[in-house]
Amino acid sequence: MKVAVLLAGCGVYDGSEIYETTITLLALDRAGVTYQCIAPDIEQAHVINHLTGEVDEGETRNVLKEAARLARGEVIELGQAKAEDYDALIVPGGFGVAKNLCDFAFKGAEMSIHPPVKDFIQAVHKAGKPVGLICISPTMTGLLFGDATCTIGSNTEVAAAIEQMGGRHQPCPVDDFVVDEENRLVTTPAYMEAGSIKEAAAGIEKLVDKILSMAG
Amino acid sequence: MKVAVLLAGCGVYDGSEIYETTITLLALDRAGVTYQCIAPDIEQAHVINHLTGEVDEGETRNVLKEAARLARGEVIELGQAKAEDYDALIVPGGFGVAKNLCDFAFKGAEMSIHPPVKDFIQAVHKAGKPVGLICISPTMTGLLFGDATCTIGSNTEVAAAIEQMGGRHQPCPVDDFVVDEENRLVTTPAYMEAGSIKEAAAGIEKLVDKILSMAG
Repeated sequence: MKVAVLLAGCGVYDGSEIYETTITLLALDRAGVTYQCIAPDIEQAHVINHLTGEVDEGETRNVLKEAARLARGEVIELGQAKAEDYDALIVPGGFGVAKNLCDFAFKGAEMSIHPPVKDFIQAVHKAGKPVGLICISPTMTGLLFGDATCTIGSNTEVAAAIEQMGGRHQPCPVDDFVVDEENRLVTTPAYMEAGSIKEAAAGIEKLVDKILSMAG
Repeated sequence: MKVAVLLAGCGVYDGSEIYETTITLLALDRAGVTYQCIAPDIEQAHVINHLTGEVDEGETRNVLKEAARLARGEVIELGQAKAEDYDALIVPGGFGVAKNLCDFAFKGAEMSIHPPVKDFIQAVHKAGKPVGLICISPTMTGLLFGDATCTIGSNTEVAAAIEQMGGRHQPCPVDDFVVDEENRLVTTPAYMEAGSIKEAAAGIEKLVDKILSMAG
């Protein structure tokens, strides 16, 4: 079994959430499953100084290069990835998902998804393979899958935006997940709710288990 | 109990190894232990494009800012850290340890340790608190602790350099650790040996357990 993991950079405020990604990869490896990290070759929306939370004016970083940093160099460009090569797809969270893969962080329910990202996730989905969306990633649910059920935890503003875009939101605690069996979609809040790394891990490890049981 | 985790940036080739750090923090959190990430406010020796492994000429990054990226913003500057505030210290690996915290990657056995890094680790050690060094970090053993026993796995060249600097090297498999009870030093090879993230995790989780039992 081989699982695609779609990345958005490296770092909670402008890329993929580092702990969510690491916990996902460790859970896959411990389950005896191979994974492939994938990222688009595009510039980040911006670079955040993680010490201050402010934009580092004048600095630019590339999503694929920073994803390579998170993947120890083992990443392929999104254009090279074929849905048929994978049994499932997982998208960890982090603001980079909402800034680089889509633009939810800037446009809310008026957002759009970077077309190659949308095409790839939909190709995996249309092949009947399960998709796992972590943390802020489920904001893409409506635009990707239409009337599918997901969770981002308890944030009512984000939940309302999800529903406005055609998805359905179901509240969920940090250590659990929501599954839409018909749409083969599994989601967990992770750092949308987590107060600590073990809280994020609890839900993510369950999501990975569920994804693998659906793909198996 | 509170454990200090000393970081060297964010990324295996020029900073702290991301997975080793994440696995360390998760193990500490799951053990019910508080941690504090700490890093020096210095420029990285260089920036590596993790897609190619080459130096990104002209790019500069700051160790403290990149450590903040790995720590979700929750990092303090090394100069603000006091040994007496912590019950133990762990230093994850990654080339950043051998490039930013010391210069082993450039000078081998002729290396020196960034003085504030050396002072802090020695202060923790002199207070009788256990120190855990992961991956390439044990190259600092001789200069820090003199005739203390450590492991970096099976790399004979690095092991010889450690002995040349006054430390003692003991070979060790990836899923285990070496403890020097007298010097209160625990070391594990992690990505000096690991072929996968679960292999790195096996040794690191045991190191964290051992450190906590020694600190408790």
